[in-house]
Amino acid sequence: MTEPTKPLPLAGITVIDLSHIYNGPYATFLMAMAGAEVIKVEPLSGENLRSRGDLGGVALPFAMLNSNKQPVTLNLKSEEGCQLLREMVERADILVENFAPGVMDRLGLGAAALHEINPRLIYGSSSGYGKDGPYRDYPAMDLVMQAMCGVISSTGHPDQPGVKSGAALCDFMAGIHLYAAIMTALYEREKTGEGRVVEVSMQDATYASLASNLGMLHARGEQAPARTGNRHGGLGVSPYNVYATADGHVVLNAPGDHHFRAILDVMGRGELKDDPRFATRTARVQNVEAVDAVIEDWTRGHVRDDVARRMLAAKVPCAPVRELSEVMVDENMHARGQLQWVDHPDLGRVVLMHSPLVFEGTARRPITPSLPMGSCNEVVYGGWLGRSAEELVALRAAGVIS
Amino acid sequence: MTEPTKPLPLAGITVIDLSHIYNGPYATFLMAMAGAEVIKVEPLSGENLRSRGDLGGVALPFAMLNSNKQPVTLNLKSEEGCQLLREMVERADILVENFAPGVMDRLGLGAAALHEINPRLIYGSSSGYGKDGPYRDYPAMDLVMQAMCGVISSTGHPDQPGVKSGAALCDFMAGIHLYAAIMTALYEREKTGEGRVVEVSMQDATYASLASNLGMLHARGEQAPARTGNRHGGLGVSPYNVYATADGHVVLNAPGDHHFRAILDVMGRGELKDDPRFATRTARVQNVEAVDAVIEDWTRGHVRDDVARRMLAAKVPCAPVRELSEVMVDENMHARGQLQWVDHPDLGRVVLMHSPLVFEGTARRPITPSLPMGSCNEVVYGGWLGRSAEELVALRAAGVIS
Repeated sequence: MTEPTKPLPLAGITVIDLSHIYNGPYATFLMAMAGAEVIKVEPLSGENLRSRGDLGGVALPFAMLNSNKQPVTLNLKSEEGCQLLREMVERADILVENFAPGVMDRLGLGAAALHEINPRLIYGSSSGYGKDGPYRDYPAMDLVMQAMCGVISSTGHPDQPGVKSGAALCDFMAGIHLYAAIMTALYEREKTGEGRVVEVSMQDATYASLASNLGMLHARGEQAPARTGNRHGGLGVSPYNVYATADGHVVLNAPGDHHFRAILDVMGRGELKDDPRFATRTARVQNVEAVDAVIEDWTRGHVRDDVARRMLAAKVPCAPVRELSEVMVDENMHARGQLQWVDHPDLGRVVLMHSPLVFEGTARRPITPSLPMGSCNEVVYGGWLGRSAEELVALRAAGVIS
Repeated sequence: MTEPTKPLPLAGITVIDLSHIYNGPYATFLMAMAGAEVIKVEPLSGENLRSRGDLGGVALPFAMLNSNKQPVTLNLKSEEGCQLLREMVERADILVENFAPGVMDRLGLGAAALHEINPRLIYGSSSGYGKDGPYRDYPAMDLVMQAMCGVISSTGHPDQPGVKSGAALCDFMAGIHLYAAIMTALYEREKTGEGRVVEVSMQDATYASLASNLGMLHARGEQAPARTGNRHGGLGVSPYNVYATADGHVVLNAPGDHHFRAILDVMGRGELKDDPRFATRTARVQNVEAVDAVIEDWTRGHVRDDVARRMLAAKVPCAPVRELSEVMVDENMHARGQLQWVDHPDLGRVVLMHSPLVFEGTARRPITPSLPMGSCNEVVYGGWLGRSAEELVALRAAGVIS
């Protein structure tokens, strides 16, 4: 093992974060955990996720996404607010926003204006449909994008209407692509000395994840079922399903003939190894009902974790269908440091996430819990931009900061 | 508009791509579209996705993910094959692999060994559970990860068992996080001159996308439903659902009071604006069945696209629930260049994707369709590594390349 001695990769990078909810804040969360200083700029009412209070349980999501950021308040509808932002931009490396297209331009803070102040700035934005297509002005949120992108029609059982993915995948796919685009431009800036405008739409960012379903549509045309329940999206693998156990469910995803033989050994059904219905993947796909019946006959008589343990010991890709209460305390993610128990000043002892980006040779940045609105107004506007105590009082009185 | 004159951001970067299926290949696809030279190194039998032929409709997914790559074949189980790989590593910037943990070490090609050859190499790997936790040796595939990460238990209707997300989100979340980690390290290398080992697990990469559901679990504990059908993951927004129309379905996701009033206007139900059941978000959440009934009474009498058009015109976040056959020809993604009709030598005229990472000021790299296995053996082993025609013949005869 290398000793964890190298600095974090984004040490020295400063980010102005104007983003809200999940998309942009996930991108800037990853920057913070990779070592950047992230200044979270919120309107005086708080960013949308914070201002909801805990309606719908948003307190934990807010805490998950806003560790290690420095929150300031700023009224961008005042000229003095815009001036403070311009001064931050002068000193920053990256600006991130996920407003609807055109909002920053209307504030006089569009990418072209900010590049005049700082040509080295990386300006990263994300929206539902992007800046330049015919849908640019459609309002977009995760559920809307799941409908528009085909996620809903691809999810659920073939004899029922489609159902959304429980994961907010369009929001988070956009957020991580936005981080990725900005890092690419940051690399480029080291070579060229010039900043960039980069952009990601939620719609573009979701498309690739439906590759299996698009593949089946291409192969079968109108014969392709819109959705396959828990079976393979291309109906090309068996066993591949959710199976009931005595106390819950497991999944098996076992494409290889050796996998199927291993499953038969675990179940004590070695006599079926010579059954022509099960001998090859093609045969198993053709006899998928029989395959699933043989497996579920056995799994129903055993408890979930025992089935999973025995299948994994036989190197069969398998997992219990876990509830989120189990996922939150997952032994593996806690061992890796991706999940950590943190004493949060508002929420008490909670599980927060670190970044999925692991940089070997450097210890993980310790998690600093999310801070109340405007906590860093003094340090940012006073310490960094050089406003005096009297000036801060005047800015507060004028409703520019809080 | 800036004239599209800047080079692509990854121009001059060379990537050795040992990866397979979706996870790693998506990361290297994004590198290729951003301007890198990607050498796709496959075993003599072809990488797993290619070698399946079109079982389960994998031909299009393979084409989607392997545009603009240079495929070579290489037998890494031969010492001469390992030697050729080491020579490529000497000359490359990035190596990507998504083997199970330990495979590269057993081949003598682990990160430490390759960094001795080229200390500037960025070595990026991805696996299901990561290299250093207790689950590191569990086999993992997208369905298995969806079970393990709580995606299945969070998806579907509350009165039915969970169902998988139709999107392969664990695979693609890992792939884009892997790209992101590698770009972060590439930026860092410009500062420090040193390479890095970076790592992403599918499990870590999926967790954040369940933020809403984790938030409701935190807020309500055992009272939290495991899944909410098409309703909000935190049950904190209404209207938020899939609604039947005369010929299909639409979604509405309308958190604001002004959204609800706009919906009432579209439906000609202005008299309900004063109804206390609907006046605030809190009231609507408490009366969610009544809200959904009022809306669906109206939507059932209208056709899908007409409902969507009228709601969008009133600035209500809305979308038709589209089939993938509609998504593939989406007007907005085609206008942006994210989707393009391409004449593919094997597949004919198909829709392929570009990268969701938009770098303004540079034209998109033209899509070059995926190539047959080993197409670039001569140019890579001959032209780049300097093997003579006679040496190539000998390598083929020895089963090192094909």
